[in-house]
Amino acid sequence: MTGTGKVYLIGAGPGDPELMTLRAMRMLAEADVVVHDRLVSPEILASVPKGARRIPVGKAPGCHSVTQERINEMLAELALDGNTVARLKGGDPLIFGRGSEEAAYLAERGIAVEYAPGITAAQGAAASTGVPLTHRGLASGVRYVTGHRQKDRPLELDWKRLADPETTLVVYMGVANIGQIALALLAEGMPADLPVLAVANATTPREARLLSRLDRIAREMRDWCADGPVLFVIGRVAGLAVARGLDLDETLTEARVAGHG
Amino acid sequence: MTGTGKVYLIGAGPGDPELMTLRAMRMLAEADVVVHDRLVSPEILASVPKGARRIPVGKAPGCHSVTQERINEMLAELALDGNTVARLKGGDPLIFGRGSEEAAYLAERGIAVEYAPGITAAQGAAASTGVPLTHRGLASGVRYVTGHRQKDRPLELDWKRLADPETTLVVYMGVANIGQIALALLAEGMPADLPVLAVANATTPREARLLSRLDRIAREMRDWCADGPVLFVIGRVAGLAVARGLDLDETLTEARVAGHG
Repeated sequence: MTGTGKVYLIGAGPGDPELMTLRAMRMLAEADVVVHDRLVSPEILASVPKGARRIPVGKAPGCHSVTQERINEMLAELALDGNTVARLKGGDPLIFGRGSEEAAYLAERGIAVEYAPGITAAQGAAASTGVPLTHRGLASGVRYVTGHRQKDRPLELDWKRLADPETTLVVYMGVANIGQIALALLAEGMPADLPVLAVANATTPREARLLSRLDRIAREMRDWCADGPVLFVIGRVAGLAVARGLDLDETLTEARVAGHG
Repeated sequence: MTGTGKVYLIGAGPGDPELMTLRAMRMLAEADVVVHDRLVSPEILASVPKGARRIPVGKAPGCHSVTQERINEMLAELALDGNTVARLKGGDPLIFGRGSEEAAYLAERGIAVEYAPGITAAQGAAASTGVPLTHRGLASGVRYVTGHRQKDRPLELDWKRLADPETTLVVYMGVANIGQIALALLAEGMPADLPVLAVANATTPREARLLSRLDRIAREMRDWCADGPVLFVIGRVAGLAVARGLDLDETLTEARVAGHG
């Protein structure tokens, strides 16, 4: 190979391979090397071409993870060696997930970056449950935050501005801190019975759902045995999970039973 | 045909057909009838199978539009006649766009609904400009609102909660009211030089971009001749449009020149 390669920053979507975009599939097919998050689902990794080298990076619970700095360096080295590099991330590369930091590092080194946006977990969970992110009269907008905090630092969120009954609040990576989040929202005047829908492994065969309310979600999550990434949809729209009479009801009941079993 | 059909609520994404999901393509291929928004791009409509009937609905500037009530009825009638109906909407069916109202109407009548989420315009604009929706140190989350208001009613947004320098604010359908939006955010203490990126026709061959700031965006929009849907990305991340040194700079300059020409 001669000359500098390039890096495709690809959103793999929430888990179901059918939710990948045509562009993501095209870019993967062109790749010499695929550098992927450990959270990218096995179903999606199955669509990586056989000839391409695969390098898992990023966090997995209890495993040693590759630092962000090392990922940046690795992407640059592979591209400077002339490879077409697919950097495959869960969700959308420009919503959380630090895709923008990787792009900045590569751009500074003159390496071309192209993007494939991905369906983010909130959209995946909405599509699989029928719970919309906006709905006239219930939510005029939607907001995504992370419930993850830096080691040894408190969760710094602007609770006053987050406590908005007109906006659907979606919390990514919030399992460890959902108790603190719920308490803070209650303290800012959000209603105790505000519906909260927790969705684990959205859009995968392992998807599980728990419908709760703001004053109970922390306790019910402790009893619920979901593993894998969990997303919280907090707001009036979550109440539609029951009201709508979609297939969701049964699944919810099963999830509750399974969680309490 | 015998029996009741079903309705696929499909997100067509922001405009570029390559940003459609595999599921959206599969559902379109199965459809007997495609009921589509007028804003769905011609490039995407080209992927509707030849044998399928097409029914344009929804708003187009200056044209008579089909009411939401009539769209609901039409979807139900077509499904009850045994058709597999693809309801094709720009962006994501469960973020703005009233997909959830259509689903509720159909579910009440026992008609099966399935969803294909779509890349929303904010994600499309991020991917085509390289301006991320979140970025460590610049924006810890992102928020989508509409700048559209009901006829004869003021724009009712919770400005105090919207004026959050830590959150990227994306305004859909805001061209008519961007002046009011900018003034209200300034009144709540947002900085005058906060970057604002306007993206017209994101991800299509007609994409145009204008980089401005909160105190100038309304005036500069008046001089800018973009037509088609415009999205506003308000927040520190928009400043990366220049800082990153991506291809964006030239395009921005061209857009400014074109706008003032």
